[in-house]
Amino acid sequence: MSDAAFVAVDWGTTSFRLWLMSNSGEILGERRSAEGMTTAMRTGFANVLTSHLTALSAPDGLPVIICGMAGARQGWVEAGYVDVPADLSDVLKGAVRVSGEASDVRILPGLAQRAIDMPDVMRGEETQLLGALSADYSSGQQLVCMPGTHSKWVSVSDLKVTGFSTFMTGEIFDVISKHSILSHAMTDAANFTGDLPAFQAAVADSYKHPQMATNRFFTVRSGQLLNGLSATDAKAKLSGTMIGLEIAGAHSTAPRDAKVVLIASGALGELYKAAFAALSIEFITIDADEAVRRGLVAAANAIWH
Amino acid sequence: MSDAAFVAVDWGTTSFRLWLMSNSGEILGERRSAEGMTTAMRTGFANVLTSHLTALSAPDGLPVIICGMAGARQGWVEAGYVDVPADLSDVLKGAVRVSGEASDVRILPGLAQRAIDMPDVMRGEETQLLGALSADYSSGQQLVCMPGTHSKWVSVSDLKVTGFSTFMTGEIFDVISKHSILSHAMTDAANFTGDLPAFQAAVADSYKHPQMATNRFFTVRSGQLLNGLSATDAKAKLSGTMIGLEIAGAHSTAPRDAKVVLIASGALGELYKAAFAALSIEFITIDADEAVRRGLVAAANAIWH
Repeated sequence: MSDAAFVAVDWGTTSFRLWLMSNSGEILGERRSAEGMTTAMRTGFANVLTSHLTALSAPDGLPVIICGMAGARQGWVEAGYVDVPADLSDVLKGAVRVSGEASDVRILPGLAQRAIDMPDVMRGEETQLLGALSADYSSGQQLVCMPGTHSKWVSVSDLKVTGFSTFMTGEIFDVISKHSILSHAMTDAANFTGDLPAFQAAVADSYKHPQMATNRFFTVRSGQLLNGLSATDAKAKLSGTMIGLEIAGAHSTAPRDAKVVLIASGALGELYKAAFAALSIEFITIDADEAVRRGLVAAANAIWH
Repeated sequence: MSDAAFVAVDWGTTSFRLWLMSNSGEILGERRSAEGMTTAMRTGFANVLTSHLTALSAPDGLPVIICGMAGARQGWVEAGYVDVPADLSDVLKGAVRVSGEASDVRILPGLAQRAIDMPDVMRGEETQLLGALSADYSSGQQLVCMPGTHSKWVSVSDLKVTGFSTFMTGEIFDVISKHSILSHAMTDAANFTGDLPAFQAAVADSYKHPQMATNRFFTVRSGQLLNGLSATDAKAKLSGTMIGLEIAGAHSTAPRDAKVVLIASGALGELYKAAFAALSIEFITIDADEAVRRGLVAAANAIWH
């Protein structure tokens, strides 16, 4: 590990990812855990960080760059927000140093949109965005989708963030699935992919009739009672309805000719790809894991070189 | 209680209401409890009914007319559905007798809409509708709103139900309030009324931009972080967003000139009145408690006279 130059950390609400990096951008080690902010608030942020560096036998005193909820008010040290409209490079300038640590630990700020009628915030996605767009830069208007518990849709024009909107798609899907009457209809649902016709039909229907969202939720139940809708189709229908609603909303906030960029990984990324295909929306995909690491590396280079 | 002629029961999922009625339509006694279907499934439907009749010292052997979830598959006896389009009087003909009871106990069927793309069901609201519209009949197209856990919007033309839509407004509001990140923003919220500007603004915004629903949910959180949104305004905003979304959806299913009829009681009825006013939608109101009782009386008269 003598090549180790710095440590990059993506510290979310419920997830922790760490990479040990060389100066040349090589990944020397990687750690993933569920010790997000929620856990670290109890066990201590410094303790969590140290335990993972020890596990990798990392040398002492490496500088550490962090993005995400570790910079929230209830996080390690509050890193504030950069207000939009903003150049993505402004995020790099706003890193806050954690005092009292032997090594140089810095947390990147989030982005805030202070418009009184559509206030919004993000933490972590700005770094993903920075990593994604600097590598895959194209001029003109882009509409960037970062799906998740709280999906972010960002309007970007020539590397300037002009505005963004958060949609609570993942969390609302989760609470409805677990805590509403629809939970019964989805018991025993198998995993499904975006190929499932019930998913694609729900995306298209919800995109076209977003005002019917809470009605479509109920048809998951009534479809089971009257039409024998299967548990898997029921779950796919709820998921498609939520995602179609989100895309309808996000699309309405941007010019029609904005290029859609999907920053995602894994199964959720596949669902969004299928949703875009069902709506005949053209898009390009950038891997989310890679994007956030690349953004952290860019920040480290800007700060320490 | 020598005048007692029959018993009318509105038996919902979580509520039970019983009236002891004379032949002339006089209310001789009334009982309300939380022994809805969910409770009665465990304690026995006959036991619940008997305990309330005993509490009123009702004579033995009175006929009993019941509407609501007692007629569901998991209820006392399954009473099936009348398929729409249907005349409301068809509901009266479909009452199912409970076998093995000393007295004549009958449960009214619900309504089902079997369209494959918008399946829907109701139980109890058809009786409310019958009571409301027979008393306050007006010809032409009506759009009837019955707000609640699962709000029902019914298109009625000359006492014929042509279609209906359920919106999960109340339940979704409830699960989001209790189980999502927004619960923190609403801790310590005071009760509010439809007069609150935050409620009215959210209704109007959501009605106009239904596709932004899950984004507007998030602004409850970000509005608190960035703009100091109060807990009461946060709760009112979530409520107004849910109700505005519902009205946008329901309105899109009916001709624009359909007369809106609100069947509601209490605080929820006042919120919907304020929402309609905020949207400049004209409407008339019918008391929900009175409507369901009147519908049950009409059913008793049709069956036993």
